[in-house]
Amino acid sequence: MDMRLGILGTGMVGKTLAARLAGLENEVMVGTRDPAETLSRNEPDTYGNPPFSVWQEEHPEVRLGTLAEAAGHGEMVVNATAGAVSLGALELAGEENLSGKVLMDVSNPLDFSKGMPPTLSVSNTDSLGEQIQRRFPQARVVKTLHTMNAYLMVDPAQLASADHTVFVCSDDAEAKAIVTDLLRSFGWADIIDLGDITTARGTEMMLPVWLRLFGALQKPLFNFKIVR
Amino acid sequence: MDMRLGILGTGMVGKTLAARLAGLENEVMVGTRDPAETLSRNEPDTYGNPPFSVWQEEHPEVRLGTLAEAAGHGEMVVNATAGAVSLGALELAGEENLSGKVLMDVSNPLDFSKGMPPTLSVSNTDSLGEQIQRRFPQARVVKTLHTMNAYLMVDPAQLASADHTVFVCSDDAEAKAIVTDLLRSFGWADIIDLGDITTARGTEMMLPVWLRLFGALQKPLFNFKIVR
Repeated sequence: MDMRLGILGTGMVGKTLAARLAGLENEVMVGTRDPAETLSRNEPDTYGNPPFSVWQEEHPEVRLGTLAEAAGHGEMVVNATAGAVSLGALELAGEENLSGKVLMDVSNPLDFSKGMPPTLSVSNTDSLGEQIQRRFPQARVVKTLHTMNAYLMVDPAQLASADHTVFVCSDDAEAKAIVTDLLRSFGWADIIDLGDITTARGTEMMLPVWLRLFGALQKPLFNFKIVR
Repeated sequence: MDMRLGILGTGMVGKTLAARLAGLENEVMVGTRDPAETLSRNEPDTYGNPPFSVWQEEHPEVRLGTLAEAAGHGEMVVNATAGAVSLGALELAGEENLSGKVLMDVSNPLDFSKGMPPTLSVSNTDSLGEQIQRRFPQARVVKTLHTMNAYLMVDPAQLASADHTVFVCSDDAEAKAIVTDLLRSFGWADIIDLGDITTARGTEMMLPVWLRLFGALQKPLFNFKIVR
C-alpha cells in the first residue's frame, strides 16, 4: 500500500488502525475534535489505556490533526469514532473532505444510556452505515470490520490462522474492491460481500450477540466464521 | 433418548424436528391449530413442499393433534411456529400444558409486512424468547437452534463435520442441560451457553445477517462458527 489515510477517532479502534496502516507504509493522519485537548490528556482512559500523547511517542510517523484536517489528508477516510457521535464527527470532518472518497465505516451504534450491555441506537429498519451514506451521498461508504475486536481487525492471523470472516457492505462495488484490498493487506482471507449498504443492518445487529459472547467467553479475541 | 415431545407447528421446522426426534426413538406429537384442516390440504405449500398429509404418510410414527394435545403430550414442548403467531399458538397450547416443562423455542420474530428481507417484530431491548418467558413464567424457556436452516438444526454434521456453533439461552440451568443433551443427540458438538433468556436478544438479532448471507451465498446450508 502507499495511500494517504485519514482516520477519524483517537480511541482504541482509531489508534489500532492507525498504527497498523502506518506500519504498512501508508501516510496516516488521525483526526480528533480538538488536537490540543487530546494531546494535553495525561491520564489513562476509562479502559486503562495510556493517553494519546504516550501512544503518539511510540508512533511518531502518525500525524494528529483536526477531524477536517485528517479527512482532507486522506485519499481514504476511516470513521473510527463512537457510533453515538459519528454523524456529528463526520459533519466536523466536512462534506467536501469526504466527497468522492472511500469512507470506511467501522463504527457501531452502541447506546450505553440504558445500562449494560449497550443496546443499538439504530437497528432493524435502518443502520448507522445507511445514515452516514444518506447524509453524505458523495462519500463511498463501505461498512466493514466493526464485528470484532480492534486487534483482530488489523491482524486476523492472531486467531486460528485468520480462518474467520469479515464482511463488506456498500452501494459502491469499486469502493468495496479498494477496501477488500486493504483488508487483504491486514491478512484477511475470508471476506464476504453482503451487498449494498442496507446489509449493514445485518452486520450492525451482530453486535448484541458479540457483546453476550464477550460475556460468556470472557475474552475479546473471538470472531464469527461463516461455515459454508 | 426416550422422551415424549410435543412440537407446535407443522411448517418445515416443525416437520424436520419431528422426523428427527421420532427417528431418535422419542414419542412425538405435532400440534396444529386445526388438525382436520391441516390434513385436508392437498396442495404444496408456498415453498413447494408437499402437504402435511403426504409427509405424515412417510412418518406414520408421528402423531398429529391440536396445539393443546401436543403440548399436553410432551414432557418437553418445542415452539416451532412462526414467530409472528407464536404467542397466540402458545395460548392455544395452554398455560397448564406448558407449566413446569422445558419449552424449547426455535422461532424467529420475522415481520414480512414491510417487504423482503423481513425485519424483526421485536428486537434490541426485548426478544420473542423473553416475551414467551414473561407470558408463561412457569415454562422453562430455552432459546436455541433458530440461527440456522432447519436441516442443519437436526443434523449439523451435514456441514463441515458439525464444526460450527449453536447457542442456548435460558434462565433455567437445568433446562439448558436437558436441551444440551438433546442437541448432542442431533450431533451438535459446539454448544455455547450465552446466559439468561435476555441473551436471546443477541441470537434473534443474528437473523438479519443470516438473511443477507442467504442472499449472498445463494444457499441455506451455512452456519456461524464462533472461532475462539
